Amino acid sequence: MISVVIIGSGNVAHHLTHIFLKSKNVLVKQLYARSLGKIKSFEDQVSITDDFETLIKADVYILAISDDAISQVSSLFKNDSFVVHTSGSVSISALKNKGKKGVFYPLQSFSKEKKVDFNNVPLCIEAKENANLLLLEKLANTISKKVYRINSLQRSKLHVAAVFVNNFVNYMYTVGDNICNTYDVPFEILHPLIEETALKIKQISPKDAQTGPAKRDDQKTIQRHLNDLNEKQQEIYNLITKSIQNG
Amino acid sequence: MISVVIIGSGNVAHHLTHIFLKSKNVLVKQLYARSLGKIKSFEDQVSITDDFETLIKADVYILAISDDAISQVSSLFKNDSFVVHTSGSVSISALKNKGKKGVFYPLQSFSKEKKVDFNNVPLCIEAKENANLLLLEKLANTISKKVYRINSLQRSKLHVAAVFVNNFVNYMYTVGDNICNTYDVPFEILHPLIEETALKIKQISPKDAQTGPAKRDDQKTIQRHLNDLNEKQQEIYNLITKSIQNG
Repeated sequence: MISVVIIGSGNVAHHLTHIFLKSKNVLVKQLYARSLGKIKSFEDQVSITDDFETLIKADVYILAISDDAISQVSSLFKNDSFVVHTSGSVSISALKNKGKKGVFYPLQSFSKEKKVDFNNVPLCIEAKENANLLLLEKLANTISKKVYRINSLQRSKLHVAAVFVNNFVNYMYTVGDNICNTYDVPFEILHPLIEETALKIKQISPKDAQTGPAKRDDQKTIQRHLNDLNEKQQEIYNLITKSIQNG
Repeated sequence: MISVVIIGSGNVAHHLTHIFLKSKNVLVKQLYARSLGKIKSFEDQVSITDDFETLIKADVYILAISDDAISQVSSLFKNDSFVVHTSGSVSISALKNKGKKGVFYPLQSFSKEKKVDFNNVPLCIEAKENANLLLLEKLANTISKKVYRINSLQRSKLHVAAVFVNNFVNYMYTVGDNICNTYDVPFEILHPLIEETALKIKQISPKDAQTGPAKRDDQKTIQRHLNDLNEKQQEIYNLITKSIQNG
């Protein structure tokens, strides 16, 4: 049985608390938040506090807090505590506690309204000493099938890559949606294509999956498309078409 | 029972032939291809030919051929034939037969190796006269639950939108893959995020689903990301970040 205390009240804290409370191999000893109201919904299941001085002893303290707060909050822990943060873009060295340090980063986009199937959420773990890494691995395995050892440099690059495949992809959907709205075409017609595009790259690499007028250098279609777009859309169309053509 | 003749030997012809051969309400009377070898695999199930003069009479002739060939091939049909093309980017007016005209456009990316669940493939249909539109609708309903009446202008815009949500999205996956490869991170870590991003916009509009450093104007993270990227990647990052911020 691994005991944990979860610090924070945002989406990640919320989802981690839910999933660990369900796990038979993890004991959630306590939740901490600056404003107690945000974790009050858990008070029937676990001890909650807004006073850092009253933190209970646990195997792992999980900081699910904003990136900027990690250094300051971690500096408050006692010497022998094992403190991990959950951020994709912050180095392990941002932790300022004197004791054991680690990272426990669930790579998924969380929203409070939507349930998450944690089994398929990749967990990227890091710790300086092997014993601590093994403990994190054990903890991660209780909730997910997808556990990866990723160091701070790799994790920061993964975070940039995630911006492309999540934020920027979503923006491409927005452009598609805007074009459809302008011509009174239901955007839902594109849903199956969007899904197929996302699933295809599980089978073949995105480089091999590339199709379209840019890939086959179909200038006639490219010109017709450009005529259909506004200036802002044209700029994006031109740049990505050029990028696809330059490999 | 609706009878059809399918003209062509590419991916769309191949998949339409397969699905219509399975349908109890459609009779595939004949397949035509310029080179017989490409449709030979169907010869046990249906009459095949490479001689246009021997085409059998049918309710609908489906041209699943390259965009550039549509005008020329359609001009070869007899006056009373109902000829439809299957292209996303070609107007109905490209059909040069003297009789009935229509469009039967399956909006999905097809590859010969991969089976398609036609039930979920959106079929965009168009015809000038209502009786012909109803016939196409009946034909479309035999294989898909998702049938849309879309005119030529709308279809051409849909085709541009598809470039953004399919080709350009896939290119964003390629950039993510490249970043991962450079730092020895398995790209598969990003698969669940990619899938979640694609599924999310079925629930909420992509505009409302937008998250990330660009959306929240997190300049510190944006600068760190730019430092991690090569020049080509930076150009894309800057343009899309700017576009997200300008709404």
